[in-house]
Amino acid sequence: MSAGLDHQDTSSTMPITVAVIGGGVIGGGWAARFLLMGCDVNIYDPDSGAERKINQMLVNARRSLPGLYEHMLPTEGVIQFCSSIADAVSNASWISESVPERLEVKHSTISEIQSHCNKDAIIASSTSGFKPSELQHGSSNPQQIIVAHPFNPVYLIPLVELVGESKTTDQARAILSQLGMHPLVVRKEIDAHIADRLLEAVWRESLWLVNDGIASTSEIDDAIRYGFGLRWAQMGLFETYRMAGGEAGMAHFMAQFGPALKWPWTKLMDVPELSDQLITTIADQSDKQSGHYSITELEHIRDDNLVAMMRALKLKDWGAGNLLNKVDVGLQKTSVKSTEPLFECNEMLTIHRVIPSSWLDFNGHMNDSHYAEVFSKASDMILRRLGADPDYVARGYSYFTVDLKIDYLNECHAGDEITVFTSVKLAEGKKLDLYHEMKDPSGNTVATGAQFLLHVDLTSRKSCMPEEPVATALRNFDLKK
Amino acid sequence: MSAGLDHQDTSSTMPITVAVIGGGVIGGGWAARFLLMGCDVNIYDPDSGAERKINQMLVNARRSLPGLYEHMLPTEGVIQFCSSIADAVSNASWISESVPERLEVKHSTISEIQSHCNKDAIIASSTSGFKPSELQHGSSNPQQIIVAHPFNPVYLIPLVELVGESKTTDQARAILSQLGMHPLVVRKEIDAHIADRLLEAVWRESLWLVNDGIASTSEIDDAIRYGFGLRWAQMGLFETYRMAGGEAGMAHFMAQFGPALKWPWTKLMDVPELSDQLITTIADQSDKQSGHYSITELEHIRDDNLVAMMRALKLKDWGAGNLLNKVDVGLQKTSVKSTEPLFECNEMLTIHRVIPSSWLDFNGHMNDSHYAEVFSKASDMILRRLGADPDYVARGYSYFTVDLKIDYLNECHAGDEITVFTSVKLAEGKKLDLYHEMKDPSGNTVATGAQFLLHVDLTSRKSCMPEEPVATALRNFDLKK
Repeated sequence: MSAGLDHQDTSSTMPITVAVIGGGVIGGGWAARFLLMGCDVNIYDPDSGAERKINQMLVNARRSLPGLYEHMLPTEGVIQFCSSIADAVSNASWISESVPERLEVKHSTISEIQSHCNKDAIIASSTSGFKPSELQHGSSNPQQIIVAHPFNPVYLIPLVELVGESKTTDQARAILSQLGMHPLVVRKEIDAHIADRLLEAVWRESLWLVNDGIASTSEIDDAIRYGFGLRWAQMGLFETYRMAGGEAGMAHFMAQFGPALKWPWTKLMDVPELSDQLITTIADQSDKQSGHYSITELEHIRDDNLVAMMRALKLKDWGAGNLLNKVDVGLQKTSVKSTEPLFECNEMLTIHRVIPSSWLDFNGHMNDSHYAEVFSKASDMILRRLGADPDYVARGYSYFTVDLKIDYLNECHAGDEITVFTSVKLAEGKKLDLYHEMKDPSGNTVATGAQFLLHVDLTSRKSCMPEEPVATALRNFDLKK
Repeated sequence: MSAGLDHQDTSSTMPITVAVIGGGVIGGGWAARFLLMGCDVNIYDPDSGAERKINQMLVNARRSLPGLYEHMLPTEGVIQFCSSIADAVSNASWISESVPERLEVKHSTISEIQSHCNKDAIIASSTSGFKPSELQHGSSNPQQIIVAHPFNPVYLIPLVELVGESKTTDQARAILSQLGMHPLVVRKEIDAHIADRLLEAVWRESLWLVNDGIASTSEIDDAIRYGFGLRWAQMGLFETYRMAGGEAGMAHFMAQFGPALKWPWTKLMDVPELSDQLITTIADQSDKQSGHYSITELEHIRDDNLVAMMRALKLKDWGAGNLLNKVDVGLQKTSVKSTEPLFECNEMLTIHRVIPSSWLDFNGHMNDSHYAEVFSKASDMILRRLGADPDYVARGYSYFTVDLKIDYLNECHAGDEITVFTSVKLAEGKKLDLYHEMKDPSGNTVATGAQFLLHVDLTSRKSCMPEEPVATALRNFDLKK
């Protein structure tokens, strides 16, 4: 058990010990997410290739997940490949059932789990289709069985649908929130929960379009990713349509577009025959569209895009970006030692983080401009410790950088861990002079930054003397010298 | 008619004169996109409020679209509000019909347009539902009428569906590509084209979920934006599922998930009654979800998110990001005077661009780190002119920055235009010393950057003497001094 996210204010204590039964794309993704968030993970999968596939997935997860955050994740947990369900589940408080989507396989797996697990453990099925009542059928301890349906890649996509008894889903929600996920509690159990109902509708309509020769798989994908996919990564269906209604609002939109529901726009009243021919057509079109990339290459591209887009959403603190920022607030408390009194030592740990894949350039290393980004964030940490926090900024005062000198001593790559130690060289009146040292885990300096800032009035945009509480913090700093 | 995108190799000559008939959310969006890409736009809308609404939309477009690119867009065209369809269309070669979605209104508008327009002009209907054959009904010159169905906000979302006779859609594709859009030619006309078939399927299923009390509008939106929305902003349905199939491929995925098609997962076999009660439920839920933002605020958030996400997709040159990069290649040729011989003058224009909204920080101005990003891109321009281009990097050589000193003299804001002039202070052996001056449109210096780089071998990651063609470029520079 390693140090973890226990600084967060929830009813559950993290990290926990986790068992993953079934180590495919979904089970492996769960294992990666829990492990990188500090939990020990026991895996059981009878497939002899499971260990290799999961280790490959862990490589992907390590190069993408930690860089989403501005601070270090907890120390990674320990992964164990077990030879039986009994070995995997006996000491676990969260058991992920991620076996194939056949009810009889789910039943026998859950029955075996329940013979060996703690009766307070949560058994969370990754099923995309079955209801908890179906999974619980015949169980002597049904309330511990819930649905926790995630989305691929599980280590990056925040959504997880929770279905089951509210006491258990409340506990599950607390645990999964600490993994940086967005638990969506489905209030009434239905087949396929919520998201897959929507996905299934698109899937059927897409099959018709291919079947009828209207559009190919790549044309359908383009219709999505150049169009509503961009909207849906940050707002959903209803919030988007609210804007389409304009100032007149949602009811106006409904009145305008409602009648279309009566039109014969969709073929969904019927389901196309899944003939060998249709399967071949789709597989061939998919080969033509994406076959020049291996699955591994596609996964890298997808993960790098997700990292870049989700980091982009941090700027407006919106959707998936809001989730990342929330986790950052928690991580900051542990990673940059905010309890340490400011200015008591010569230098303060201001940054401890992993380089995101979205910071690389054509030279295959962190682009020079992102060193400036790291130092800018290091200065923000000092400013917040001085009392120049978001409240202070909202009151109309801040610090602006006047000059910055960066010396580049070594390269950084995606997934590299870095720290920045910042010392205050001068803090007097309007002036603040900082010196940053960026280091690799061995303590070698990879870059230095000398940054001079001035205190400003945000209304006049001119320099001025600091107000409280910054003024007092500066006086105290002066006394300590 | 202003200078424009005529450097691009297509059969059409841009900019063109455009008429927009119907200035609502879609017509106004078309007007903004054409105008900002250098075309003159004539608008006709009988609504007395249309001018105010379109000017508001232009404010949004100007603060978001130009910053998507690393170079300046062409000089904005001239917008004119006309008092009749005749006045608007007489000199236009592209006529956007964006009137309400009622066939009799479309017919009378198109008939009036055809009485006054050039017979070679393209009449492009924004209809989301009607087929070209329906719009063409009764027309004496049907081949000029096509569907060009865009997505809101038209000035940012790249997708546009084209339906009609191939000769006309070929011309339309060339024009719309030059606007930075992704024209998707629908090969067989069907009701609602392609994207809206998919959207309609999700819409109906969502109405059932709300109607049956399974999920609220905000729960459905969360199921989308925290889940498959993030996937669909960069890959569509089929490319995503290809990965779910793993190394076994798409046919394996079909075999595994195909049977689900036979299950009763969807209510789409029937359409819910659009009762007053259901409309009220949805409008109320939407108020609760998003009512604390005005439509204007939501639009700003959406646009800033789209800018940040689409810029994020530039890094992997993927999807919407690939489109942006392609436009950049064209813009670069006009905006940074690449025909000017390198080193003939003391300083070279290396950057001419607009500040994207995604570069702002909590002080409401361009974050200090993005000055470094601008100077980094200015250096890339010099490197490419020296012959250290992507081919040279692929051969294993590049330049790494050793130090950078930035002096911040003034603030920059979203939508601000900046130029960078770079002079080569030293170019000798492995050494390259650059000096950047960033200026506002009045010629005031807003920042300076002194950047020292060394030539490196990308295999050993150590400095080395430049290879050809860089060595010769440096010798020529030395001769010129």
